[in-house]
Amino acid sequence: MTSNTSTGHLAQVLAGLPRFTQDPAELELVRTDRSGYVPPTLPDGVVRAESVQDVVRTLTLANEHRIPVVPRGAGTGLAAGSSACRGEIVLDLRRMNRILRIDPVEQIAVVEPGVLNADLNAAAGEYGLFYAPDPASTAICSIGGNIATNAGGMRCAKYGVTRESVLSLTVVLADGRVLVTGTQTIKAVTGYDMNALFIGSEGTLGVVVEATLRLRPAPVATATVAAYFRDVAAAAAAASAVVAARATPSVLELVDGPTLGAIDLATGTDHRRRGEAFLLAQTDGFGAEIERDVVLRAIEPFADAVLIAKDPVEAEALVQARRDAIPSLEKLGRTSIGDVGVPRHRLAEIVTGIQQIAQDTGVDIYTVAHAADGNLHPMIVVAEHEPITEGAPKDALGRMFELARSLGGTLTGEHGVGLLKQDWFTAEVGQVSRDLQHRIKRAFDPHNILNPGKAI
Amino acid sequence: MTSNTSTGHLAQVLAGLPRFTQDPAELELVRTDRSGYVPPTLPDGVVRAESVQDVVRTLTLANEHRIPVVPRGAGTGLAAGSSACRGEIVLDLRRMNRILRIDPVEQIAVVEPGVLNADLNAAAGEYGLFYAPDPASTAICSIGGNIATNAGGMRCAKYGVTRESVLSLTVVLADGRVLVTGTQTIKAVTGYDMNALFIGSEGTLGVVVEATLRLRPAPVATATVAAYFRDVAAAAAAASAVVAARATPSVLELVDGPTLGAIDLATGTDHRRRGEAFLLAQTDGFGAEIERDVVLRAIEPFADAVLIAKDPVEAEALVQARRDAIPSLEKLGRTSIGDVGVPRHRLAEIVTGIQQIAQDTGVDIYTVAHAADGNLHPMIVVAEHEPITEGAPKDALGRMFELARSLGGTLTGEHGVGLLKQDWFTAEVGQVSRDLQHRIKRAFDPHNILNPGKAI
Repeated sequence: MTSNTSTGHLAQVLAGLPRFTQDPAELELVRTDRSGYVPPTLPDGVVRAESVQDVVRTLTLANEHRIPVVPRGAGTGLAAGSSACRGEIVLDLRRMNRILRIDPVEQIAVVEPGVLNADLNAAAGEYGLFYAPDPASTAICSIGGNIATNAGGMRCAKYGVTRESVLSLTVVLADGRVLVTGTQTIKAVTGYDMNALFIGSEGTLGVVVEATLRLRPAPVATATVAAYFRDVAAAAAAASAVVAARATPSVLELVDGPTLGAIDLATGTDHRRRGEAFLLAQTDGFGAEIERDVVLRAIEPFADAVLIAKDPVEAEALVQARRDAIPSLEKLGRTSIGDVGVPRHRLAEIVTGIQQIAQDTGVDIYTVAHAADGNLHPMIVVAEHEPITEGAPKDALGRMFELARSLGGTLTGEHGVGLLKQDWFTAEVGQVSRDLQHRIKRAFDPHNILNPGKAI
Repeated sequence: MTSNTSTGHLAQVLAGLPRFTQDPAELELVRTDRSGYVPPTLPDGVVRAESVQDVVRTLTLANEHRIPVVPRGAGTGLAAGSSACRGEIVLDLRRMNRILRIDPVEQIAVVEPGVLNADLNAAAGEYGLFYAPDPASTAICSIGGNIATNAGGMRCAKYGVTRESVLSLTVVLADGRVLVTGTQTIKAVTGYDMNALFIGSEGTLGVVVEATLRLRPAPVATATVAAYFRDVAAAAAAASAVVAARATPSVLELVDGPTLGAIDLATGTDHRRRGEAFLLAQTDGFGAEIERDVVLRAIEPFADAVLIAKDPVEAEALVQARRDAIPSLEKLGRTSIGDVGVPRHRLAEIVTGIQQIAQDTGVDIYTVAHAADGNLHPMIVVAEHEPITEGAPKDALGRMFELARSLGGTLTGEHGVGLLKQDWFTAEVGQVSRDLQHRIKRAFDPHNILNPGKAI
């Protein structure tokens, strides 16, 4: 801990924190996320905030006494962005989980950060509305965490990422001051884009305690198709053909052969017998069925078999194949979910390259992809007792980042940098950008108490 | 000029700037924008940059000698964001106007900042694509200026503002270093959102010298309707009904009675005889006609008369009414175009309130609005010899800002703060945000040479 406070005095300071505990069982629950990374030590304690005032008091004290604070939502992150160790305290925001207001006329929701993504969607659904960002973890991830990572999901290519759905934030700054960013209007350009600066900053610039979010009308209709292909290159070519056909599917998901095999093993399906790659497409809106037919015509020349959902039950069965991917892999061992992105037309190249990396390193890699925006999730699976963030898995991860970059891509499309991707950060953004980002960090958090060592 | 350089030495420094002139006729052309504001003096000179290297050399020298630089695109701004006076030099980017690359498969364009919005759209159109942000000034405004103000236009509610169409920027910083922001991928969350920080920063953080922009498939179909109403409140209620009907029109434009009168006067039409307010709606995409009928059913209960375009010629005639608004007003006198925004459901309140302000101040105010996102352009018209940024017009402007804010709104939806809205900036963003924005400014431009006194 970079503290100017003696140990005895420190204990006194910690005791002054609201809703604070050092119970080892509680600390065990908040020490890391779902990335597979386990910090070497436990954090010094956890504040279980229930109000803006709790957050203000925590940061004011922490800033005064130079105590590093790791803000935390539901702990579903995949980059160790909320992992904490000795010398740090955790600021847990799960209890701030109220939906404060839904305005169905204005189509906005005002929520606390601990609200789960799926709970917001259920509440919005009662008014015929929905909240567009839909990470695979929707049932268990919080809006605060979604904002911290600028989370995406399956609907981004049509509806944008979290940034496109945030109108205003209330943020507690490192020194305990309260900032309101943005406005309650759809558009505003008064000064710098302070919303965007906090979205994706992984808790390093401030702690979001309230968000005004844009809801959208639930589509009046949705249409679903799926197809099997002889190999991933054919599926990727089909995805490119969909984009070239001027369609804007709300969902365009690719699943590779190894992943299909894992799903078959876990659920008793026979996907892999039908193809070495699977593509799921949904269109929505007033022209859903017309647009579905355009998608279909684009896919057909590349596919071995095409399935058209005739009703919602059949549609649900097709979507289920994609949704089963991660749970099926988790049954095989410890899973680390990658998040590289490439320009959309290089999808086939990177999927093929990842298969080569799996062969070269001897690591099992399974890939699903948001094909419409070139964002892939190559998943490394190791046996339960094996480390996932060092040795051959780390080597494979590094090679995947380098491959993505060599194709004009990025090391993270929607999960964030956290702790795990620090080694590759500067290679991607460059030294000038790194310098500026650290200047911004110092301007907001001069004593570096907010999630130090993460994101940038 | 906040310079530590003697006058003789300064002349020498200026002489070292690339493509530099002090010709008064040239200076006259670059001293201001289309806001109606005329700076009291002429700038010291203008650099007519033709390359990144010209920009690097200019900023390096300016930073070293503390010479304030006003970056400038096509000069179509409406907030005096590129106005310049004695002690400042202008960095004119109009000559950097090449479309460097259009990739129709990836659906991106790489352009220099001086490319005109309409020229990019024409080039994209050859591939069945379009660039979504469409300010009314599309034919004469530059992409660099669009980025500087985060420009919007008529299609924002469906397609987003400039921010949603920028993937990557090359920026020359105050000290001459070159920064690349973002990536060539649709999604990326590596570090802070540096794209968003520059978009809308009005040339105060750096000078954009290249942009990678997202293009979108041109809609396969577009459908158009329009309606006349007995008053503005009825038209605003109809616009709210469209939103409530879960439609997402690509265009939803409101024109008030006084503006209809001005159009009639200028073009010989008879709009105002038909109603005291006009609403234009367009839907697009695969379900354009189905969605148009939904819009129609939402509007009908409020309207006195409804018109459905049966073909592109009829559609064009309806769109023309909206497009004629600004040119018609400009025939009446000097025009200052306001840009307030409110939550969408408060549209009727603000339009009525603006009419009251016109009565109270004796100033003529004409209003058009992007109804789907609550962004209004109340236009003040004065006689050619009258000042437009002081006296009663300024009083009316201030009252409109206060009205917008009292309704939960903003003082600028898409034009920016520039010089003209400085007085109201802090009232909107608050002291904490102002402080942070100035810290960001200092982190990027410690000697405050980039467009000082603008935006924040």
